[in-house]
Amino acid sequence: MDITHIEHIGIAVKSIENSLPYYENVLGLKCYNIEEVADQKVKTAFFKVGQTKIELLEPTSDESTIAKFIEKKGEGVHHIAFAVPDVAAALAEADAKGIQLIDKAPRKGAENLNIAFLHPKSTASVLTELCQ
Amino acid sequence: MDITHIEHIGIAVKSIENSLPYYENVLGLKCYNIEEVADQKVKTAFFKVGQTKIELLEPTSDESTIAKFIEKKGEGVHHIAFAVPDVAAALAEADAKGIQLIDKAPRKGAENLNIAFLHPKSTASVLTELCQ
Repeated sequence: MDITHIEHIGIAVKSIENSLPYYENVLGLKCYNIEEVADQKVKTAFFKVGQTKIELLEPTSDESTIAKFIEKKGEGVHHIAFAVPDVAAALAEADAKGIQLIDKAPRKGAENLNIAFLHPKSTASVLTELCQ
Repeated sequence: MDITHIEHIGIAVKSIENSLPYYENVLGLKCYNIEEVADQKVKTAFFKVGQTKIELLEPTSDESTIAKFIEKKGEGVHHIAFAVPDVAAALAEADAKGIQLIDKAPRKGAENLNIAFLHPKSTASVLTELCQ
């Protein structure tokens, strides 16, 4: 797989409002975008750190996978997203290598990127996103 | 705080040997170093992805904090390390802003870097390392 860098790290938080002061005032990062991804039932906040973004994920419903993640594991890193030049090609390669896919084909994610998730059962327990 | 990039992401695994094939054969990353950090009771494996390293952490003892993390939360992302030009200065700044420090002063970590950890209670629940 032709990974160029870590596109973002997704971090599950109960409240973006409560987490922002740490990222902005202590780490000195600047939140440049907050948006809601309705079909994922999350609100997201983005910061840039070098090549990589930090994406805070706040559930907007108890049915959100982020709400379930927080309930089970607590707040913390939810997924790692790798930048690849072609998500469809990377998915096909992962599939051919026996990796369990959550998304069989690329779909649109936050920031209008093409994305697809690989199942943590096949990715050494880290929920993994491919991002283009 | 003057963060330049994400230096590494630390991922707790039960076995580096079992996790390596995913990172090398599926993601196509190359492990360039495996070393033991005796005082942390861990074995570490490093991969480079753009500006950032992935550091797999395997406990070498049941007393390791990594063993306890896996027992409590399962395998997964254990910490995020931010690169700063001066760990002592960044620690002093975090301290002044009321952040709970795990390390009151920089110490030597893997790859002989100056490092210090901030307590997740003060860092929106993500164990955070500063790295120089």
